[in-house]
Amino acid sequence: MSRKPTGAAVLQPEVTQAITEAVLDELAETGFGRLSMEAVAKRAGVGKSALYRRWPSKHDMVTAVVSEFSVARAEVEDTGSLRGDLLLTLKALHEWITHPRFSRILPDLIAEGARNSTQADIMRDSIGVPRRERGEAMFHRAIARGELPEDTDLEMALDVLAAPMYWRLVVRQAPPGPDYLESLVELFLRALNAKV
Amino acid sequence: MSRKPTGAAVLQPEVTQAITEAVLDELAETGFGRLSMEAVAKRAGVGKSALYRRWPSKHDMVTAVVSEFSVARAEVEDTGSLRGDLLLTLKALHEWITHPRFSRILPDLIAEGARNSTQADIMRDSIGVPRRERGEAMFHRAIARGELPEDTDLEMALDVLAAPMYWRLVVRQAPPGPDYLESLVELFLRALNAKV
Repeated sequence: MSRKPTGAAVLQPEVTQAITEAVLDELAETGFGRLSMEAVAKRAGVGKSALYRRWPSKHDMVTAVVSEFSVARAEVEDTGSLRGDLLLTLKALHEWITHPRFSRILPDLIAEGARNSTQADIMRDSIGVPRRERGEAMFHRAIARGELPEDTDLEMALDVLAAPMYWRLVVRQAPPGPDYLESLVELFLRALNAKV
Repeated sequence: MSRKPTGAAVLQPEVTQAITEAVLDELAETGFGRLSMEAVAKRAGVGKSALYRRWPSKHDMVTAVVSEFSVARAEVEDTGSLRGDLLLTLKALHEWITHPRFSRILPDLIAEGARNSTQADIMRDSIGVPRRERGEAMFHRAIARGELPEDTDLEMALDVLAAPMYWRLVVRQAPPGPDYLESLVELFLRALNAKV
């Protein structure tokens, strides 16, 4: 059973911040399945009520924290060229995936999603969809510049852009060499028939 | 502490098969972290000694079972062309990753690997390296046929070949449409500057 947050209370930002850090720490150490509201509250130095005042359930709390951490990092500025945008995107992806805590959190949430379709839906709606919208905007800019064909398969392009970084860094745990991101961009430009 | 298997005993293949199935079932349901030798033995209808006669520890047992299940599926016959070999490889990857039990086992083992470097090493040595050797053989055939440049970056090629299937099927849980594999092959041929 989840409780509604009491809307009237004023939420102190420094408490929210402490809880957010505690959620990320607990997720990295114990994983979603074994994470408890008690452990988060204890680590943040607050009572459980401070958690329930913000989020009605563990699911909502984790979703909010992980989504806030993840989606902002997919914001990539318009560098004026597809090549520049792609390199910036891969660098941001690299930073997101190799973040000390998040590198353990993300595969755990994915494993949880494979066992539990509600969890998979939450991940998709709170991280996947918003991140992909930002990626699509980048590709639409490239199409508008004439750098990509108008009939580019954006769904496949987004899969092929994001996947190798995850594979390399998380699945293989093989940190890439210094020119890996640049080489991946060039490979990707060829794959998409880019005119750059 | 791990015990040495008693080499003198004759191992019945049907018992090994029942244990293998039980390991895969337990891994899919409870994950590596919570898997116990007791539960595997009970599910297989054997005593724990039947397990220890075959493998000295839980780690060895899981590694052997998962590796046997995984590596054989990376054997791809020589179709005579890179395009044909790639399509066969992606189909085999698709079947491996979407296997009802394995689709839950693989992300769990990856999450475990992110928390535990010993586990990551075992995964790499027992699955990653042997599978990649088979992929490299396919690329060497293509180079010998003149379909790929001699200086093709095989490490990157292997990352880019395998990663989108995992991303699509496990991370995004978005089953691909009917022409997805064929389109991915064409994209990949362009990415690698293939002459086919």
